[in-house]
Amino acid sequence: MVIGGGAAGMSAASAARRTDPSLDVVVLEAGGYAAYGLCGLPYYLAGLVERADQLLAYPASYFADRRGIDVRYRAEAVELDHPGRTVTYRQTGRSHRLSFSALVVTTGAAPVSVPLPGMPADRVFTIRSLEDGIALRALLDAGRVGRALVVGAGYVGLEMAEALAHRGCAVTVVERLDRVLANLDVEPAALVEAHVRERVDLRLGTDAATGCALGPDVAVVSVGVRPAATVAAAAGARTGPGGALLVDDRMRTSLDGVWAAGDCVAPYHRVLRSPAFVPLGPAANKCGRVAGTVAAGGDAVFGGVVGTAVVKVFDLEVARTGLTLAEAGAAGLAARATDVVHKSRAKYYPGSAPLHVRLVHADDGRLLGAQLVGREGAALRIDVVATALHADLTVDDLGALDLAYAPPYSPVYDPLLVAAQAARRTLEAV
Amino acid sequence: MVIGGGAAGMSAASAARRTDPSLDVVVLEAGGYAAYGLCGLPYYLAGLVERADQLLAYPASYFADRRGIDVRYRAEAVELDHPGRTVTYRQTGRSHRLSFSALVVTTGAAPVSVPLPGMPADRVFTIRSLEDGIALRALLDAGRVGRALVVGAGYVGLEMAEALAHRGCAVTVVERLDRVLANLDVEPAALVEAHVRERVDLRLGTDAATGCALGPDVAVVSVGVRPAATVAAAAGARTGPGGALLVDDRMRTSLDGVWAAGDCVAPYHRVLRSPAFVPLGPAANKCGRVAGTVAAGGDAVFGGVVGTAVVKVFDLEVARTGLTLAEAGAAGLAARATDVVHKSRAKYYPGSAPLHVRLVHADDGRLLGAQLVGREGAALRIDVVATALHADLTVDDLGALDLAYAPPYSPVYDPLLVAAQAARRTLEAV
Repeated sequence: MVIGGGAAGMSAASAARRTDPSLDVVVLEAGGYAAYGLCGLPYYLAGLVERADQLLAYPASYFADRRGIDVRYRAEAVELDHPGRTVTYRQTGRSHRLSFSALVVTTGAAPVSVPLPGMPADRVFTIRSLEDGIALRALLDAGRVGRALVVGAGYVGLEMAEALAHRGCAVTVVERLDRVLANLDVEPAALVEAHVRERVDLRLGTDAATGCALGPDVAVVSVGVRPAATVAAAAGARTGPGGALLVDDRMRTSLDGVWAAGDCVAPYHRVLRSPAFVPLGPAANKCGRVAGTVAAGGDAVFGGVVGTAVVKVFDLEVARTGLTLAEAGAAGLAARATDVVHKSRAKYYPGSAPLHVRLVHADDGRLLGAQLVGREGAALRIDVVATALHADLTVDDLGALDLAYAPPYSPVYDPLLVAAQAARRTLEAV
Repeated sequence: MVIGGGAAGMSAASAARRTDPSLDVVVLEAGGYAAYGLCGLPYYLAGLVERADQLLAYPASYFADRRGIDVRYRAEAVELDHPGRTVTYRQTGRSHRLSFSALVVTTGAAPVSVPLPGMPADRVFTIRSLEDGIALRALLDAGRVGRALVVGAGYVGLEMAEALAHRGCAVTVVERLDRVLANLDVEPAALVEAHVRERVDLRLGTDAATGCALGPDVAVVSVGVRPAATVAAAAGARTGPGGALLVDDRMRTSLDGVWAAGDCVAPYHRVLRSPAFVPLGPAANKCGRVAGTVAAGGDAVFGGVVGTAVVKVFDLEVARTGLTLAEAGAAGLAARATDVVHKSRAKYYPGSAPLHVRLVHADDGRLLGAQLVGREGAALRIDVVATALHADLTVDDLGALDLAYAPPYSPVYDPLLVAAQAARRTLEAV
């Protein structure tokens, strides 16, 4: 049985079915959709994606008809009786109990809420469900959103600001901190901040209540998420960072016969060398697949995360992987940052744009992370550093890479190579 | 002293100067320009780059004025007297002899020539020097090229076909082989072939003479290059694949006090685990820097190549790294190929295009290479595989990478991850 029909849950259910086609696979999904991509919601709201069902990985009927998976919608798991091997769930007001031989918990993450004085509940959106997105899109399509408030200037907040501005709304973004994108170091984040300021009304060090006083037609809240792990935790599953479920590399929780995956777990972070709460889609898909495979009697191992993320913020690509300098410091690592700006293509080739590269590295040359900001070339280039981190390469290894060169795509020394050479000089100057 | 003022030579001269500022650094350049980027010539010819001097890494006066490097132009080295530590060169019809304490040979590669019956010499171009490009551009600008013949359908041939078509010429490409891009496997190359056929007159299995019979106004020949290593080889330097100079990881030749770098050497290929002739710009720059540093008394090591290359062919990005299946076979490696086609972005995001991925891998799962062809996302994605090859990762490692995901840039399972998963199934089916 799988609790949760998001990316992790449906990956687990599908993998379990593939591993043992004789299994009964039941998925309890609290909402009305399965295998939805929340990451696509800003583009659906912006109107770049026409219909909400385009965000579904598969049509609703696919899992039952093609994969023999019994997805129960609007079925909210409320209790796990681990000794009894049963899950109690509520559906259309009634309580049901279901027994399992193997359970995969993919209960995801829940949005942190903030007080929004004066905002009616039906004008507040958290963009954590397809239903929420559909309701907001309906208001936008009806021309009922002249002024929009976005609370929080993280990844999703800035994506939403762009989407709402694209729809012609007057957008104000309020952020309690004095900066945007707390997942980046201050310097790269400042580049993004300047870009956002040219496009919407950005107010840092400002609380949600102040934003509400502007009288927005809607408020979109994205001030972070917390692991939604209470059902498994109440049954005794061990938790770690931020209350996320602790799992081993086969996605086993501390409860026998119970696996977990997705935004409710803290998977192994290869750079930190410890579990970390990094609620993002790719890891959810991959560890869901591992959990489902192992729960069904197969074998698979999750390779861990290195903290890679990318976001489009208006005309900027903003990417990170590994640890920021701040994160490295918080983890007790002696680290330095090296910053360079280099062209994204050969200097003479049309369209070349400055790419800001920050490398974070230890004093012994170990590569710890990177942050890239630019109009082009950041999103895919970060994957080179993610690969280098996976392989535990050094700054010198990075500088020695045989990266592709042609004038339309990169300078002869790729910006990452230039940054690695600069980092080498930083290390020598220590 | 440095023989050759291209990318490798000027990198070597600059590195030598940085390593030991007291050195006299002399560069003998056979042509009229130093530190030129030949890779930019097609874009200069297409008119995307306005002036030839934009292709120079630095203005002509830069090396003398800012770096104290004595570049002697139109100075062709003709003899190396190794026991006597002198080089004889010809300049404006006269012979000169110069002694050295340390010598870096960067004599590059020379184009292979083909008979072109009926074509006047001043209408034949090899695009191996800036002068050659300037002369052809002048003809194009004067409107004197109605019909153009390109001989050879390799990287440069196809770039030139695109450039000439962009200028409105009627372009015929003749290729002796029955395929384009011999550096790719047949199947990925066929995708490129179909794309090229829609845009110019492509004739495979056709010799240059047949092309000349069409009466072109100009012929551009690019049927490959050979190492131009005769001066050093005549002095006794050991050569390897294709006649290229053999060097160690500090770019030392077999001659004491003589280093070499650039297209005249066969550097270490990390996947082949042996020297290979791979004449491309990034390696020339990097190994030039190493040669200059070491020749001047410093220490540096060249990390080797993995065979990465990328080319823009009209609207396609075409990239490769490591070994093709054919190259792996030729090297005696038991290898298989796995092909997938996956979207370049989230399926619902505008602009998403199919990306063809071929992975080449050994039966034990060792990753050996990749080829990517698509309208977008091939050029930078190949660098992920290049990094994986540098670190000697397996197909399973590749499939476990924590790559960046956002709908505008990739699907939640990046095409490389999808290919790695498919390769795993290929291996299990063995």
